[in-house]
Amino acid sequence: MEIKIAQDKLAKALNNVSRVAAGGRATLPILSNVLIRVDDKKVSLTTTNLDMAVVSYLPAGQCENGVVTVPARLMAEFVSNLPRKEMVEIKASGDDKVVIKAGGYNSTINGASAEDFPELPDIDDEKSVKFVMAAEIFKAGLAQVMVAASNDMTRPALTGVYFNTFEGGLYLAATDGYRLAERKLVEKIENEVAAIVPASSLQEVMRSLGDEIDEVEILFDEAQVRFRLGEVEITSKLIDGSFPDYRQLIPKESEIMVDLQKDELVRITKLAALFAKEAGGSITCSTDTEAGVFNVASVANEFGENSSKIETKVEVDGKVTLNSRFLLDALNALEGKKVKLGFANRLDPVVLKNETDTKYVHIVMPLKG
Amino acid sequence: MEIKIAQDKLAKALNNVSRVAAGGRATLPILSNVLIRVDDKKVSLTTTNLDMAVVSYLPAGQCENGVVTVPARLMAEFVSNLPRKEMVEIKASGDDKVVIKAGGYNSTINGASAEDFPELPDIDDEKSVKFVMAAEIFKAGLAQVMVAASNDMTRPALTGVYFNTFEGGLYLAATDGYRLAERKLVEKIENEVAAIVPASSLQEVMRSLGDEIDEVEILFDEAQVRFRLGEVEITSKLIDGSFPDYRQLIPKESEIMVDLQKDELVRITKLAALFAKEAGGSITCSTDTEAGVFNVASVANEFGENSSKIETKVEVDGKVTLNSRFLLDALNALEGKKVKLGFANRLDPVVLKNETDTKYVHIVMPLKG
Repeated sequence: MEIKIAQDKLAKALNNVSRVAAGGRATLPILSNVLIRVDDKKVSLTTTNLDMAVVSYLPAGQCENGVVTVPARLMAEFVSNLPRKEMVEIKASGDDKVVIKAGGYNSTINGASAEDFPELPDIDDEKSVKFVMAAEIFKAGLAQVMVAASNDMTRPALTGVYFNTFEGGLYLAATDGYRLAERKLVEKIENEVAAIVPASSLQEVMRSLGDEIDEVEILFDEAQVRFRLGEVEITSKLIDGSFPDYRQLIPKESEIMVDLQKDELVRITKLAALFAKEAGGSITCSTDTEAGVFNVASVANEFGENSSKIETKVEVDGKVTLNSRFLLDALNALEGKKVKLGFANRLDPVVLKNETDTKYVHIVMPLKG
Repeated sequence: MEIKIAQDKLAKALNNVSRVAAGGRATLPILSNVLIRVDDKKVSLTTTNLDMAVVSYLPAGQCENGVVTVPARLMAEFVSNLPRKEMVEIKASGDDKVVIKAGGYNSTINGASAEDFPELPDIDDEKSVKFVMAAEIFKAGLAQVMVAASNDMTRPALTGVYFNTFEGGLYLAATDGYRLAERKLVEKIENEVAAIVPASSLQEVMRSLGDEIDEVEILFDEAQVRFRLGEVEITSKLIDGSFPDYRQLIPKESEIMVDLQKDELVRITKLAALFAKEAGGSITCSTDTEAGVFNVASVANEFGENSSKIETKVEVDGKVTLNSRFLLDALNALEGKKVKLGFANRLDPVVLKNETDTKYVHIVMPLKG
């Protein structure tokens, strides 16, 4: 195997794939490596953690077919420290040693046989369900729902984002049982899907979605999903499980509705949260029709107490207790300058929406105040 | 006690002092607090960790004399989250509760009696030795030597920076036993000093040295030092101990001298360091008169091997083994684009200097290669 390639192109491709490679001493050492393959003038770099795999394709002028694996992070760090635009020569010898040369720089990295590298299951383009959409819309929508996914590995279905079609539209949804976010990605779409993609794989998809990528291609088969993002291809296992029937949990309407400036609500929530540490972040939101204010308050026996108000139109008196972090996460995920906050006097979910955008909804379960 | 003050001024002063206050549950809880004192239209905020104290002075128009303490970090975070330029009212009631109001924001923070706040020893302006210098020169010089100070609390004298006068000049020096940095701060000065200031206190001085500060005033007495930095005053205990007689350790000249581009040397040292992790960061620098190159190499049984060269004028063949991190720290501390590197074939210290600046010298002890 032999490649001659510009430093900046190689460094970028190595950075794209090296995050997925295991750092340090992995249980299966080859998972720390990147597979470098040259086949018919095409160079590909592949890493995998068995749950997902990332492939980055590179054009190479001068090259010779072959395949080898080397430690991914060492290789990525090495190449990124070489001078920009320098031509880098990579040459594998028979004993899995890889010689890298660039100007006055000369290294030999000990590799491992490509035979031991886990084979990746393929997705059949013909037999899979395919969605194509603008990268910008996909990235923004994904970020809005991922915040609500769970980290609790004992409930695997909640650690993913649910890609689903409903009444002809494509939706993303995530919930950790305490809050839920749903985003309509595409208004009308022909194909149908109902699949849970691990949030960890989607985080990698987000990181790989650079500004230079215009379009995202998503292919689902029974057990896997593949994201085609320009020169990068990410393939992930799907989560085997059923996602909660979440649509029934979103209140159609709320007894109390207030319109607020988002930055003001963020500010008073942060102020209340400072005093709420002792109470696990619990803050109390209330409306006061007489004073015409929306109020956020918190009490900590140790630190003191806090209350802040925003003047706004309120028609019903009410009170709800929330986790301040969940409220801040929801506000952060909402687009626009204004927020519609709906709640009821009981234990009904609190609904957060943008004033005009009906594509996104975020609900937060109240705490027993 | 009562103050009415603009949010931005108060937030800045609180940020200046709150870093020194203990976070969370300190052994002496009052060390988490900031002392707010109003005396004759002057407001001062004070925190201390018993080794050092920071005072920030504030002008306040409307105020009433008094003194109180409140949790410093809570107060700082609270005020920094209030809207910019809003007027903030702070009022202490008799039971050590402090009420803070600003527009629609209303908080009561539980304080503690100022009587329990540790009293700070004063420095007598008349009896102390005083140095005044440009803030920029002091800050740059301090940064250049602090990198060589030790973290090893079993050798307290090495955990500080040695302020000393020698042949009429004022010098800063620090060493951890493996490397040493010395900077001449002032060419000719009248006073004399020989005092070790804790690096931890100096880190706080560095952080407080904003761009708006033109001049630094430094006062030494027998046991303490005070830094006057604009509206901030930092007082620290001195380290009781004797600093090594370091001047004799700096080689007057080296057998082998090479002139190198600093960024090139940084690059090849970083590349070699990637392979040197297994060997504790150890890399080997050598000169080759025949090829006319300066070479940096490292070997790791596990990862592979690396060597890089820079073409330069060399007159003597030689080789020295160094800790790559110490070499990178030294290069980072050196000003200018070129570096003069001096070493000898034995275990003599390696000397790093700027091409023209004779005020700074950094030496690194070789490893047994």
